[in-house]
Amino acid sequence: MRRTRAVVVMADTCWPSCATNLKGVILDMCGVLYDSGEGDGVAIPGSVEAVRKLKASDLKLRFCTNETQAAREKFVAKLQRLGFDICVSEVFSPAPAAVAVLRQRGLRPHLLVYDALLPEFDGIDTSDPNCVVIGDAAEKFSYANLNEAFRVLIGLEKPTLFSLGKGKYYKETDGLKLDVGVYMKALEYACDVEAEVIGKPSATFFQSVLNDMALQPHEVMMIGDDLVNDVGGAQQVGMRGVQVRTGKYRPSDQRHPSVIADGTADNLAQAVDVILNRRGKP
Amino acid sequence: MRRTRAVVVMADTCWPSCATNLKGVILDMCGVLYDSGEGDGVAIPGSVEAVRKLKASDLKLRFCTNETQAAREKFVAKLQRLGFDICVSEVFSPAPAAVAVLRQRGLRPHLLVYDALLPEFDGIDTSDPNCVVIGDAAEKFSYANLNEAFRVLIGLEKPTLFSLGKGKYYKETDGLKLDVGVYMKALEYACDVEAEVIGKPSATFFQSVLNDMALQPHEVMMIGDDLVNDVGGAQQVGMRGVQVRTGKYRPSDQRHPSVIADGTADNLAQAVDVILNRRGKP
Repeated sequence: MRRTRAVVVMADTCWPSCATNLKGVILDMCGVLYDSGEGDGVAIPGSVEAVRKLKASDLKLRFCTNETQAAREKFVAKLQRLGFDICVSEVFSPAPAAVAVLRQRGLRPHLLVYDALLPEFDGIDTSDPNCVVIGDAAEKFSYANLNEAFRVLIGLEKPTLFSLGKGKYYKETDGLKLDVGVYMKALEYACDVEAEVIGKPSATFFQSVLNDMALQPHEVMMIGDDLVNDVGGAQQVGMRGVQVRTGKYRPSDQRHPSVIADGTADNLAQAVDVILNRRGKP
Repeated sequence: MRRTRAVVVMADTCWPSCATNLKGVILDMCGVLYDSGEGDGVAIPGSVEAVRKLKASDLKLRFCTNETQAAREKFVAKLQRLGFDICVSEVFSPAPAAVAVLRQRGLRPHLLVYDALLPEFDGIDTSDPNCVVIGDAAEKFSYANLNEAFRVLIGLEKPTLFSLGKGKYYKETDGLKLDVGVYMKALEYACDVEAEVIGKPSATFFQSVLNDMALQPHEVMMIGDDLVNDVGGAQQVGMRGVQVRTGKYRPSDQRHPSVIADGTADNLAQAVDVILNRRGKP
């Protein structure tokens, strides 16, 4: 216990040093910018202004989300309604990455995803499926739907399962909700397969964002509420990872056996202030 | 491939030798006695007569099932309607074993099980739950119900999850269906816990059947359609395990990396004929 506490204190007081030579920031969205829930959800206090400050700085900014509840156009419009300065081309999400993989490998998916995400898969042949793609689907994760995906998989000579992210749960305004990773594990166990994860924390996914920013990993900081998928994923490709204590953050994250954030902050507003105050200082 | 094939042939032709000094037989039920499905399901051809032959012999006979779709009284009555000579006291199933554990440890469960199983938990306090018990629940495994179980677990200081069996899937007359183990894995992942499995393949569970028979493991043979839970579980406590090619049997079972059946048979009728023909022979 004493060791863990020491690490936390160090991270809290020392992390601004890793902001010194920063050239870019990647922000997670749900739990950092806003809490999802009924309707558009609610912006987390200070986060609209924090994004505005980042955009006014000379830091490059991208948004990296495992959001699969709607096609990008739709959820970017939602964030704009919440007051955020954001556009579709700045947002990286798993569905377009999955479409690229399916095209590349000539695969025809059985899709178990939110109806609102289906437009991302327009033009993809879903007849006679030879793989399964699951994303967060909430109420669509009925027994019948999961069983249908299972029957497709178990009927394939080489079951191929793609999971859009592998999150355990997320927070909506009415409480914690199970995320896609839980159903990925269910199908992995049922069919004795290992899913290919598309989205955070996959290194391929983070690298595609870095490529778009034209920056090196050590020049970029990821800020997220998910210790494993945001912080751990970013660290694995060489970025710094800061965790905010909003969204799905839980105090027990500070005792995680393998992932330690490079820094923590109460929320995005505080993290951005630390970064911008630190810039240019030796 | 050649090695595997050789093992299979040996098992098929040599297994009667392990029936020589047999004093008892334990039968799995679903997939061995009958295939479940609409209504009572259907008896597997020859299995009613096979049970009758075993009862007419001097072998002790018990039934050991992970059946949790209904209280024992109900599903034993179903089997009697299908023509089987069977009574409740001969049947070992996970729910009564779970009730014993809950009482012993003073636990109050949140139950996610078939409604028809609830009578087994009569008299158990389910208020202010401090653990979760899941059994096969089929359509009751809705997103809302699984999320509710998750919220109970994640809210506990020390999440305690009991799973009535850990089967991957079973076969009904309309096809394969996901079993409780899949949802156990889902909750394990969501809450970073390891479930305590009550039922097959738990050694405690098999041992309780042996105690009731007053026999030693090497004197008893388990016959089931599930290579891991029936055959592997029985072998782990020292019994012989024979797999029948009915129910959830799949040809790929013969290439399983760790479990090799002591013998195989087309169905229960054939297995019982082999056993009874072998009895008393040197």
